[in-house]
Amino acid sequence: MKKILVIGAGRSSVSLIGYLLQHAVDECWEVTVGDISLEMAQKKTQGFSNAKAIAFDVNNEIQRREEIQKADIVVSMLPAFMHITVAHECLNYRKHLVTASYITDELKGMHEDVAKEGLIFMNEIGLDPGIDHISAMQEIDSIRGNGGVMEGFESFTGGLVAPKYDNNPWNYKFTWNPRNVVLAGQGGAVKFIQEGTYKYIPYYKVFRRTEIIEIEGYGRFEGYANRDSLKYRSLYGLDDINTIFRGTLRRVGFCRAWDVFVQLGVTDDSYVMEGSENMTYREFINSFLAYNPHDSVELKLKHYLHIDQDSEVFDKLQWLGIFENKKVGLKNATPAQILQKILEDKWSLEPEDKDMIVMWHKLTYELEDRKKCKELSMVVKGEDQNITAMAKTVGLPLAIATKLIAQNKIEKRGVLLPLSKDIYEPILSELKEYNITFDEKETEI
Amino acid sequence: MKKILVIGAGRSSVSLIGYLLQHAVDECWEVTVGDISLEMAQKKTQGFSNAKAIAFDVNNEIQRREEIQKADIVVSMLPAFMHITVAHECLNYRKHLVTASYITDELKGMHEDVAKEGLIFMNEIGLDPGIDHISAMQEIDSIRGNGGVMEGFESFTGGLVAPKYDNNPWNYKFTWNPRNVVLAGQGGAVKFIQEGTYKYIPYYKVFRRTEIIEIEGYGRFEGYANRDSLKYRSLYGLDDINTIFRGTLRRVGFCRAWDVFVQLGVTDDSYVMEGSENMTYREFINSFLAYNPHDSVELKLKHYLHIDQDSEVFDKLQWLGIFENKKVGLKNATPAQILQKILEDKWSLEPEDKDMIVMWHKLTYELEDRKKCKELSMVVKGEDQNITAMAKTVGLPLAIATKLIAQNKIEKRGVLLPLSKDIYEPILSELKEYNITFDEKETEI
Repeated sequence: MKKILVIGAGRSSVSLIGYLLQHAVDECWEVTVGDISLEMAQKKTQGFSNAKAIAFDVNNEIQRREEIQKADIVVSMLPAFMHITVAHECLNYRKHLVTASYITDELKGMHEDVAKEGLIFMNEIGLDPGIDHISAMQEIDSIRGNGGVMEGFESFTGGLVAPKYDNNPWNYKFTWNPRNVVLAGQGGAVKFIQEGTYKYIPYYKVFRRTEIIEIEGYGRFEGYANRDSLKYRSLYGLDDINTIFRGTLRRVGFCRAWDVFVQLGVTDDSYVMEGSENMTYREFINSFLAYNPHDSVELKLKHYLHIDQDSEVFDKLQWLGIFENKKVGLKNATPAQILQKILEDKWSLEPEDKDMIVMWHKLTYELEDRKKCKELSMVVKGEDQNITAMAKTVGLPLAIATKLIAQNKIEKRGVLLPLSKDIYEPILSELKEYNITFDEKETEI
Repeated sequence: MKKILVIGAGRSSVSLIGYLLQHAVDECWEVTVGDISLEMAQKKTQGFSNAKAIAFDVNNEIQRREEIQKADIVVSMLPAFMHITVAHECLNYRKHLVTASYITDELKGMHEDVAKEGLIFMNEIGLDPGIDHISAMQEIDSIRGNGGVMEGFESFTGGLVAPKYDNNPWNYKFTWNPRNVVLAGQGGAVKFIQEGTYKYIPYYKVFRRTEIIEIEGYGRFEGYANRDSLKYRSLYGLDDINTIFRGTLRRVGFCRAWDVFVQLGVTDDSYVMEGSENMTYREFINSFLAYNPHDSVELKLKHYLHIDQDSEVFDKLQWLGIFENKKVGLKNATPAQILQKILEDKWSLEPEDKDMIVMWHKLTYELEDRKKCKELSMVVKGEDQNITAMAKTVGLPLAIATKLIAQNKIEKRGVLLPLSKDIYEPILSELKEYNITFDEKETEI
């Protein structure tokens, strides 16, 4: 019996826990699901054999040690900054660890010790990062295996609402953490390389430097740049590549309207606004506009940011209700927190709504003196409110990676990323069973 | 004999040291000038009695203690972050301290101890902060003394080049630390209050939200907002005021052109650019523009930021040489460091150039049911390359404050700001002897 401890039973853990429990009997696993809320953990394990739900508080040192000590593999679905505490216990008690989060320098620093103990700490094996890594590396390895030379790599991912339920002027609803959407792009300039030239974009220009991407059967999307594309060069072994660019997908028109919020300064999370609780949405917006006792907030905004009255941008803003005399009702809130509240009023998924994940890679390369271009696209739709596309695409790669570790199918040891064939191949292959597949299109250029 | 130790003998200390040495014999002072460079210290003390120059390294604990122990009053002209080390020694050895820098929370935290020891740590007594405080407080106290009620306070200061030497399209030259000019406005949103409404401006809009200010005899200026105006409400006892705004003055047209650099992202000091050393100015600018193998850098920039070919903005940019194939020549440089270098090529003062300080306050108030407005303006020009307007307006208030302490004319004890009558009155009065005076204009509104 292998013992698997899953820490965190929130929305994002649905497919992960589902997979582990469905395979528990066949694979001889004992799966323990721990969450701050026992109820939440129980909901996920209900009706399954080899399953146990516990109330689990990672900050309770005694319990943390006790439970990790009992496990063989720990899957941490905690917020990223909490993984390190779990990682130290896993090293102490010699347990494998799996997470979907970006590897930190602190975690990377544990590599030697983890390897020495014969352990695997597998990270970045969710959707993005996760499926992006494994699908890109499979393709890159295949191109190289055929003698091709990589010249360019672009990759975009987006969490959107499925077309049938896409019924607001922004063509967007929150399908994941709203806070991350509001803060997207902040924290440093965008860096990428295009045709051999390093390029930099400040935060306040990111949403005006977009690219249009078309995916057959799904229409057009627009992509804005993620912060640091450069680090993927060495990760993917693309140090000599001419173009590398990673970004996020939205429906066309989203970014230009979002840029209004950026330009106003309402995405700022670094200070608290005076009197936020009793402020109206209208007053909130007016706080970022010049004082004038006679002009309307609408006109001041349109004039300030050059928005035409009959534009789609203005339509989007008005639809959100930002000019209404509705109370914010948040104490000591930052602009970003207030904006998030306004957006949550309008961008929340309805019970019957389904989400959609879109991933798109473009690889350009030279093969036998010919320039070629390969586009890969993946579209995954949610099944219902619980089994969302996001939960599936994050949870299933995590679960399959956990299975590979449990089956001793991964040879490497240490703090790892899913970049090698022994990891990406079985995961991609099994994801097909869940209709998580890529369409391919190859052209000569 | 009172012993005064001046730490730092750089450009900004010229007038400070000059004053102290001119008064040393009459006042029975022994003035020691310490600098990392003995030569620099010697240059400043040459030919004066009661003066001593020493090589002084604030990081040398033994020397630091020895010299501070010998003094009665220490004047620190070190970079702001170094004052705290000096402050702790001053407290230990029971010495008074004078600086021109903004008070920090750490320094503020020493207030009780400093007061208990009967010491004065006087801060913010240069130009800005300094002359702005004392001139504003004198006027505010006078308005209130007459029964007036303050309604609004605006204050702008600028370090510029004197009109006669103002011969470039930016109407600007570096008269002080160029790095601070490049980074101006960064580090958090601008906050102020206008007609009772809190207003916020993000960094990337600051240079487009300017105000035009006219000063008789000197023409028009434009003012951009300083970061935090709100803290001056409590400092000046203006907690109920409807409008408070502090800013920096430039000549009209400067900010709009500067905004091009902000929008490009070239004022960013948070990351190092790849290959900065061998990059040309042209390549530097191109790093912030979209890739296109055919279009010129000039056209891409004009199109991106909506700059007309025949505009003054484009004229200013071209004059700076930003499109030239000149090497940057700086290793591992940030965008801000590279921009600073480009600007230093063009904005440096010529040997015969003279600088100019402009300060302007606008106070609105109600007196006997009438709304009134008082404008105060101060213009100070440099005398030569050494005795610049900046050195005078920073150094003389510092020196006079030091004299007041030496003469036991300040009663309060602790970590102080120059906001009370016993401090501002004698300083403003003596500054008149140096032609540092304010013109006044009063109108009913």
